Amino acid sequence: MELIHSVSDLRARLKAEPDIGFVPTMGNLHAGHIDLTRLARGRVGQSGVVVVSIFVNRLQFGPSEDFDQYPRTLKDDCEKCRQAGVDVVFAPDEHELYPEPQQYSIEPPEIQHILEGAVRPGHFRGVATVVMKLFNMVQPSVAVFGKKDYQQCRVLDNMVRQLNLPIQMILADTVRAKDGLALSSRNGFLSASERLEAPQLQRTLSAIKSQLQAGPQNAGAIAKLEAQAIADLQSRGWQPDYITVRRRLDLLPPTFSGGVADKSLVILAAARLGMPRLLDNLEVSL
Amino acid sequence: MELIHSVSDLRARLKAEPDIGFVPTMGNLHAGHIDLTRLARGRVGQSGVVVVSIFVNRLQFGPSEDFDQYPRTLKDDCEKCRQAGVDVVFAPDEHELYPEPQQYSIEPPEIQHILEGAVRPGHFRGVATVVMKLFNMVQPSVAVFGKKDYQQCRVLDNMVRQLNLPIQMILADTVRAKDGLALSSRNGFLSASERLEAPQLQRTLSAIKSQLQAGPQNAGAIAKLEAQAIADLQSRGWQPDYITVRRRLDLLPPTFSGGVADKSLVILAAARLGMPRLLDNLEVSL
Repeated sequence: MELIHSVSDLRARLKAEPDIGFVPTMGNLHAGHIDLTRLARGRVGQSGVVVVSIFVNRLQFGPSEDFDQYPRTLKDDCEKCRQAGVDVVFAPDEHELYPEPQQYSIEPPEIQHILEGAVRPGHFRGVATVVMKLFNMVQPSVAVFGKKDYQQCRVLDNMVRQLNLPIQMILADTVRAKDGLALSSRNGFLSASERLEAPQLQRTLSAIKSQLQAGPQNAGAIAKLEAQAIADLQSRGWQPDYITVRRRLDLLPPTFSGGVADKSLVILAAARLGMPRLLDNLEVSL
Repeated sequence: MELIHSVSDLRARLKAEPDIGFVPTMGNLHAGHIDLTRLARGRVGQSGVVVVSIFVNRLQFGPSEDFDQYPRTLKDDCEKCRQAGVDVVFAPDEHELYPEPQQYSIEPPEIQHILEGAVRPGHFRGVATVVMKLFNMVQPSVAVFGKKDYQQCRVLDNMVRQLNLPIQMILADTVRAKDGLALSSRNGFLSASERLEAPQLQRTLSAIKSQLQAGPQNAGAIAKLEAQAIADLQSRGWQPDYITVRRRLDLLPPTFSGGVADKSLVILAAARLGMPRLLDNLEVSL
């Protein structure tokens, strides 16, 4: 496995490679990330190259967020990548990625301002911009992102389609612990009792999914399911930001004509349990 | 020469080409455009491929602008490209480039709102977005733009650098008639007497350049040169929008500390002569 720090070294290494699978990350890798590298390898095969980038992107952190505290574990991350058969880890420093103040950005539509975007203004613009830059450096044929960050997946998948990037996007199913908790760096901040409670988030989403599929499927019924889920979690000590049923493509609320007009939905959840804020989601097809 | 209309046919044709020179245009080609294709050929050589795109991009026209009236002369354009040795003309229709409403855009910084951007709100966002899409379709190693549209050149060159596109940008000198008038589709709208007067715009810029190089080079002196040039053109029947000395990189006004702190400048002009609005510019190094 090669560890590369500069854009010019990266371009030189990848210049003659016809088939590149790319997994952009902010490091602090866990089994969920490693699963993404395996999916990339599955697409490009042994003759292809799997590249993981590790870069904590200041552009996607708000001024009051934890950019400086974000865990940097490059040595461990490289060892995990080596064991997983990754070919190249690209770990630029901030000056390499932003040698001058970043003035050109990718501007996503309304999806950037809702849900996680409402909590983190500017976050998805920052994500889209850095991923565009990384795409142009790596020039992958395939890029893999985890559906754990569902809104990020949609922003980036729509960006690739609308800006005609020649990249096949793989949106990978969330890797979960045996009890159903979605893997996340933040799970490490849960106390022992919170860790036992944490899978309740996914169980809540499953319950909404079952009730939604059983019907009724109108605006009032959906609002009731959402409100009930929030109340249930609150009664168990959670502080939910949102539990909401959305259209899968743009994450706007579904439209209704008689029943739900959109059949491809996703239930999105963000809720604090003690210190950490946990995200999860569940796709629903009606 | 091949005429290609669809993105998928274009990708298939260019898939195995290692060296692609690209000239994006809105068609209605004149000798200035053909010069750009020659520069592209010079860079990629006979083993490379020269691609010209012809697409009148609605996104860069304001609601009150002449999108519908913009001349479409595809047959003539193709013949000119064939004679110039262009390999591929890519002429998509609007649905091919915008199969769904364009929601993701490239957002340039302040440069998009000044000068031509002040007259045409949203214009440079539209230009940057369509050029990014075309770049991702063609995947050129070299792209050529004419300095006649100086602000466009700067917006796109800065975009390429800041978003790390793997493209060498060639900003080509303006092709002029023997009397100095910059070639432009709009020159055809000049009356015979206006055509005789039109080279005065370039002569005015040359006069500013000489006086600027002779000095003094402070804010007051530059403002005086600009005001004098505007008054002179007005007295000859022109309606100038701006005649202004700017920094070359971002087209903001130069900074001063004692003299001019920025040594790479450009004088930009936009002025109406009868119906047509003429643009010209002249680089100055102090």
